[in-house]
Amino acid sequence: MSDRPLLVKDLGEHGLLERLQRYCPPGVVGDDGAVIATIPDCSLTVTTDVLVDGVHFSDRTTTPYDVGWRAATANLSDLAAMGATPLGIVIGLSLPGATPVSWVEEVYRGLHDCLQLYQTPIVGGDICRSSVITLAITAFGTVMPQRAIRRDLARPGDAIVITGCHGLSRGGLELLLAPQRGASLTSAERDRLIAAHRRPQPRLDVLPYLAQFPAGAIAGMDSSDGLADAVVQICKASGVGAVIDCSQIAVDSGLTKLETKAKVWEWIFYGGEDFELVLCLSPELAENLIEELAGAAIIGEVITDSQIKAIGLDTANNTQILNIGKGFKHF
Amino acid sequence: MSDRPLLVKDLGEHGLLERLQRYCPPGVVGDDGAVIATIPDCSLTVTTDVLVDGVHFSDRTTTPYDVGWRAATANLSDLAAMGATPLGIVIGLSLPGATPVSWVEEVYRGLHDCLQLYQTPIVGGDICRSSVITLAITAFGTVMPQRAIRRDLARPGDAIVITGCHGLSRGGLELLLAPQRGASLTSAERDRLIAAHRRPQPRLDVLPYLAQFPAGAIAGMDSSDGLADAVVQICKASGVGAVIDCSQIAVDSGLTKLETKAKVWEWIFYGGEDFELVLCLSPELAENLIEELAGAAIIGEVITDSQIKAIGLDTANNTQILNIGKGFKHF
Repeated sequence: MSDRPLLVKDLGEHGLLERLQRYCPPGVVGDDGAVIATIPDCSLTVTTDVLVDGVHFSDRTTTPYDVGWRAATANLSDLAAMGATPLGIVIGLSLPGATPVSWVEEVYRGLHDCLQLYQTPIVGGDICRSSVITLAITAFGTVMPQRAIRRDLARPGDAIVITGCHGLSRGGLELLLAPQRGASLTSAERDRLIAAHRRPQPRLDVLPYLAQFPAGAIAGMDSSDGLADAVVQICKASGVGAVIDCSQIAVDSGLTKLETKAKVWEWIFYGGEDFELVLCLSPELAENLIEELAGAAIIGEVITDSQIKAIGLDTANNTQILNIGKGFKHF
Repeated sequence: MSDRPLLVKDLGEHGLLERLQRYCPPGVVGDDGAVIATIPDCSLTVTTDVLVDGVHFSDRTTTPYDVGWRAATANLSDLAAMGATPLGIVIGLSLPGATPVSWVEEVYRGLHDCLQLYQTPIVGGDICRSSVITLAITAFGTVMPQRAIRRDLARPGDAIVITGCHGLSRGGLELLLAPQRGASLTSAERDRLIAAHRRPQPRLDVLPYLAQFPAGAIAGMDSSDGLADAVVQICKASGVGAVIDCSQIAVDSGLTKLETKAKVWEWIFYGGEDFELVLCLSPELAENLIEELAGAAIIGEVITDSQIKAIGLDTANNTQILNIGKGFKHF
């Protein structure tokens, strides 16, 4: 009798799929495809995301439960960024036969627990053998086409709104990699940063606030690849520029205890994985939104000029040109 | 100046995505998610498939163009097996930075060329770094929910229909691995087997024939994992058994020149990747279907008894019990 854990190769593809069905609603999974009801007058929104072991997650900082949770959030955040309500996700999983079954189940548990906060079922998947663990997730949702939040709708004069704090996930990662650096943080600060990294939440809760605004009034995307990336992508797609007033951006007290001001601003602009929404809308609607949505702030303005700069920094150089080159690079 | 080909790492993620946009319809790709119109009264069908280098394809037998083509077919075939009309696909691609850009473009060209035969756009994707090339494809389509072809609707007395020939793809693979074995085949036979392996086609063309039958009248799935697997899966899901009469199954002349009778039957039942439909419907409707659809045949009957057997074999044992254990194993 061996004490080794049950491995994927012990169960085989069918055995593993059977075990994972407990995370799926009954009757939906098990055919060539899932059949899901849609909503009249709404269009379909689809988004896909691939996560690779050693690139997007590592055992050092992320439990398998958190891998699943973060993957769910990343995909639901893309739907939120389109203004779409989720309908379901499918999961393509490739992994070595020597992966413990418990690892896979923990990933699914994390996915499931995050998804159920947003009533989103896992409706299908595929599993196959590979030398490296890879999770490919496709999420789909529904949106009235004229209400889709697109990147290319920003207009000069629009206010730029963020729905919450930035840099926290990057700070949390730092604490996980080097816990001793967090000695001067309060436990509330430590918990806040680590939770932001391990259990981020998609901002689907923002959509009801936006539903009261006229159709086509909002441009935007999520800040999963960093606040700077979001502002730059929106400006590029819309053919405009932006001025960001850093004095309007809340800086978490935990971050300033961890790093120099310059580094904290780098985390805020380029850290990524904060999963907030970055929205461009008329100043009147923006005022209306930040009054109702706790934590939201107007941080700048869309301009005709194509440059994208951050002013009002509390560092040696108080102006910075934002770009996408500093973010996470895949190759 | 070096002669080495342009590599993925030379372009980076954004550069590669920009190049690949030529294979996508303008205006759909480039936001957090694609927005696609749906069809009133129809439900959404979603299916996902992961292909891994060295497991599902290899440079030895499959060009990158064919990798793309086969991936498109595998996914469209799952939609056909649900009775669904395709709306689009998304592609999650992970690969080493040292992959030639031309390899990726060829995969996309193959995907695109197959998809356009069925008016199906590539509406989104994600690209990231990995040590092994992996393609995760999610296809979605639309079907009237009461007309979905499900596995669990087969009833005792139903006729079992196949829409075309089996074993060809496996025979084609054999010819690609050992061309000298094909010496006694005519060039038409060789071409037929190799085309079946390299450029299989999903049987979406069958759906209009089925549209004339009453809703809920058809059970079925595709034979991508083998004819035996399809029959067994349908029987298991429906709680029934089946008798397959092998004298009714067409055997390609090229296969009998390549292998012994026993081996040919193994390829027909367990070879896989033929992407035909296996349908269970009343004998009257079945007669109707095979009259209209060239190449289709009634090969057996659904029975109450849970056993699944093949009779009328022209081998030493003229009866065989079918199972799913002999098909392609992932772990």
